[in-house]
Amino acid sequence: MRTQTKNRWHLEKQLPSGARLGRLYTSHGIIETPAFIPVGTKGTVKSLTPEELKQLGVQIYFANTYHLWLSPGDKIIAQLGGLHQFSHWNGPIITDSGGFQVFSLGRKNFSLHGNLAGAGKLLRINEKGAKFRSHLDGSIHFLTPKKSVAIQLNLGSDVILPLDDCSPYPLTLGEARESLRRTHLWFQKSWAYYQKQASKMAVPPLFFGIIQGSYYHRLRRQSARFLRQFPLAGFAIGGVSVGEPKLKMREVVAWIIPELPANKPRHLLGVGGVDDIFDFVRLGIDTFDCVLPTRFARMGKIMIKRRPWYLDITKNKFATDPRPLDPNCSCYTCQNYSRAYLHHLFKNRELLAYRLATYHNLFFYTTLMKCIRQAIQTNTLDNLAKEYEVI
Amino acid sequence: MRTQTKNRWHLEKQLPSGARLGRLYTSHGIIETPAFIPVGTKGTVKSLTPEELKQLGVQIYFANTYHLWLSPGDKIIAQLGGLHQFSHWNGPIITDSGGFQVFSLGRKNFSLHGNLAGAGKLLRINEKGAKFRSHLDGSIHFLTPKKSVAIQLNLGSDVILPLDDCSPYPLTLGEARESLRRTHLWFQKSWAYYQKQASKMAVPPLFFGIIQGSYYHRLRRQSARFLRQFPLAGFAIGGVSVGEPKLKMREVVAWIIPELPANKPRHLLGVGGVDDIFDFVRLGIDTFDCVLPTRFARMGKIMIKRRPWYLDITKNKFATDPRPLDPNCSCYTCQNYSRAYLHHLFKNRELLAYRLATYHNLFFYTTLMKCIRQAIQTNTLDNLAKEYEVI
Repeated sequence: MRTQTKNRWHLEKQLPSGARLGRLYTSHGIIETPAFIPVGTKGTVKSLTPEELKQLGVQIYFANTYHLWLSPGDKIIAQLGGLHQFSHWNGPIITDSGGFQVFSLGRKNFSLHGNLAGAGKLLRINEKGAKFRSHLDGSIHFLTPKKSVAIQLNLGSDVILPLDDCSPYPLTLGEARESLRRTHLWFQKSWAYYQKQASKMAVPPLFFGIIQGSYYHRLRRQSARFLRQFPLAGFAIGGVSVGEPKLKMREVVAWIIPELPANKPRHLLGVGGVDDIFDFVRLGIDTFDCVLPTRFARMGKIMIKRRPWYLDITKNKFATDPRPLDPNCSCYTCQNYSRAYLHHLFKNRELLAYRLATYHNLFFYTTLMKCIRQAIQTNTLDNLAKEYEVI
Repeated sequence: MRTQTKNRWHLEKQLPSGARLGRLYTSHGIIETPAFIPVGTKGTVKSLTPEELKQLGVQIYFANTYHLWLSPGDKIIAQLGGLHQFSHWNGPIITDSGGFQVFSLGRKNFSLHGNLAGAGKLLRINEKGAKFRSHLDGSIHFLTPKKSVAIQLNLGSDVILPLDDCSPYPLTLGEARESLRRTHLWFQKSWAYYQKQASKMAVPPLFFGIIQGSYYHRLRRQSARFLRQFPLAGFAIGGVSVGEPKLKMREVVAWIIPELPANKPRHLLGVGGVDDIFDFVRLGIDTFDCVLPTRFARMGKIMIKRRPWYLDITKNKFATDPRPLDPNCSCYTCQNYSRAYLHHLFKNRELLAYRLATYHNLFFYTTLMKCIRQAIQTNTLDNLAKEYEVI
């Protein structure tokens, strides 16, 4: 049964709006979509154990190839049995190509989303790949399409992504065209190498293409049409959430969706907020990865169902508040601790603060996604969107 | 049954060496002694949940009155239902008087053990109490014997300690005599206030005296003899582990023990290392509090059964080590993670590092204490000490 269905996505239901229910089969388990994928940059979703992720209903986590490549190194991880064993997580893992971090070191507009110190630098970029200086120790590395796939194979990722030219916003049409040309060239090299390796593997990982093309309709369409020629397991949309206005982001995705086959999953890279999730699910996006809930948690921003979808627990008004973070939430944190205690933990930078807040925020997201799947099943997405104050 | 035995300690067995087995009854549960008490300075044993403490076999935690008084404030905690409810811990809690932190701000020798920034300062000390500047915001506070007891009652502590003059090492005989005189004077004020308050309470907390007297046999004896006149629930020994040689510490405790009644529990403040625990259990100490296992954990010092009883997981030699922290350990961390992964987490300052290491280190301590209790039962302490490389 497992082998028959492995490495495939099944469309289970699609609403007229475009929202879809599906199931993605990987060799480490099934992912019910729409799904939110929390980020575990260095092989750990910050502050939580894998057992807690399972309790929370997290189905898959997102690891960053750049970071794991530089430390501890993909070869060490392979030696130790791969990233699943290394990080004690037996569910699916998706990895990026490492490109986003390499580019975010050297290009200004990425400072919005990149969280790396200034030591790193993008040194050279050409058809072969990207040369850069490590943010850790200043050592020089060359990331190529083949290298990126090789690292991800060493990690043992379940879903791998090809190296792409991560363009900032805005770009001129000429710059965007050149960037897309490079992305497609790199894609072909990645794909060729992946195919060669996959043919030798009993259970090869899934391989998604990444659609780029900046904020140009023609280029985005061109990218989608180019990539759909290949027998890919799915499609990721890159180059959004790079500092552009929210409406632009929706426009770009709306251009792309009609170009994609209905029977393949669609991942939106680096998105989202609560409103983003609703909007893009309705446009036909199946999976999301984003640091938002985990990073917010570490800042004391606690997800709630009311705009702007968080409260800042570090504010003084919470110092004596005996209520749970969210009185309607049934997560471990809300069942057992007061806002006053969380405020106290954050004020004193106690380690437990980050755990309890991260647990709550991911519970908020897994609950949101369960409710969205349920609402697609019953065609009641609008009601749910109202409940979350999205519309 | 509960009310008959509450607030008392029962001696269950005593070996010729002096080592004892006992049970301390508090209104939040029974503590089997000898016991190690982890420190939860600000109402949280750093990085762990109360459920995890229970799993680990932690019976009671030690909170710091100084910190909770200044932030969030004992009155806020009282309003919120007391420290048990605030910190979601329904087991026993012991609190100190706040004195140690006040003194450690203003006196040099305490820098060894105090972990406070330089902003705070001890301003004046007299028979009424100690005036100091808060390390948090520079505000001026006056800690009196009565105030300290009142704060601990507001917190809802199960075992409270009176304000004492925390003398550094070394002191001249004259200084030590003056310091002890003040400690005893403060004790009388504390005790009077405690008795008055306790008479109004359905279930008053236990009250322990603190024996001081620096490194002078005559003063220590005098202190023990003075305190044993009062119907105290137990005795704490203060003014050790303040920078003196280890042998001196043992000498002081050996002077005191014969002066104490056999039917009352004995707590040693701020101790211990693995060897200390063995040595002092044999001298007749029943309970210990110390930041060692939890602080070591956050530094990457992982407790093991071999001298010096820890390994430093941050060392490069562990970067590729597939073994558990301790191959013979059955804790969650050792059952599920490699040294290489812990090394990686510590190197990248990942929050999970501190959790996994703290969990292991407290498991080491609760296991040690269980084995010690078992060894007293079977009179095999020497074998156990050999197993732990103490003798």
